[in-house]
Amino acid sequence: MIEQLSEAERADALDGLPEWDYDEGRDAIGRSFSFNSFSEAFAFMTQVALLAEKADHHPEWSNVYNRVDIVLTTHDAGGLSTRDIELAGQIDDLVD
Amino acid sequence: MIEQLSEAERADALDGLPEWDYDEGRDAIGRSFSFNSFSEAFAFMTQVALLAEKADHHPEWSNVYNRVDIVLTTHDAGGLSTRDIELAGQIDDLVD
Repeated sequence: MIEQLSEAERADALDGLPEWDYDEGRDAIGRSFSFNSFSEAFAFMTQVALLAEKADHHPEWSNVYNRVDIVLTTHDAGGLSTRDIELAGQIDDLVD
Repeated sequence: MIEQLSEAERADALDGLPEWDYDEGRDAIGRSFSFNSFSEAFAFMTQVALLAEKADHHPEWSNVYNRVDIVLTTHDAGGLSTRDIELAGQIDDLVD
């Protein structure tokens, strides 16, 4: 069973993810990424897909040309969990 | 210069794409695809990405786990063009 983060845990976790926006309504985090081309954007998506599949935790995401928008939340937990925080950190490591 | 399809051309083209929904407000077409897993959904997305890059015509699309939603329109033409119809046909060929 994956548990939703408490308010204090969430605040701590988000301190480590300054590029991600917190969506209070959904208890989710989101970040937008821009690249130089569709090819670069999709290469990034492929890396994220492999991370997600390995973690068995998958994003809600969209792509328009060179832009990728990612939202993370844990449906089974009813909101943000450590799974989201870990995946967000791994995604950041790909680009930052 | 890519031209927007006329109403008659669009009607003809959509007859050949019965699985796609026409969005009149955006002059765009959309289709949702469901797979057995994220892995299968992303494999499909990779095939679509290669088709799109080859055609230099890219979808607006999103993915949540096993589902992929694709919208096609041609920004340069202000709406649907033959590029959308061709890419939609190629995408259909991947799954149907």
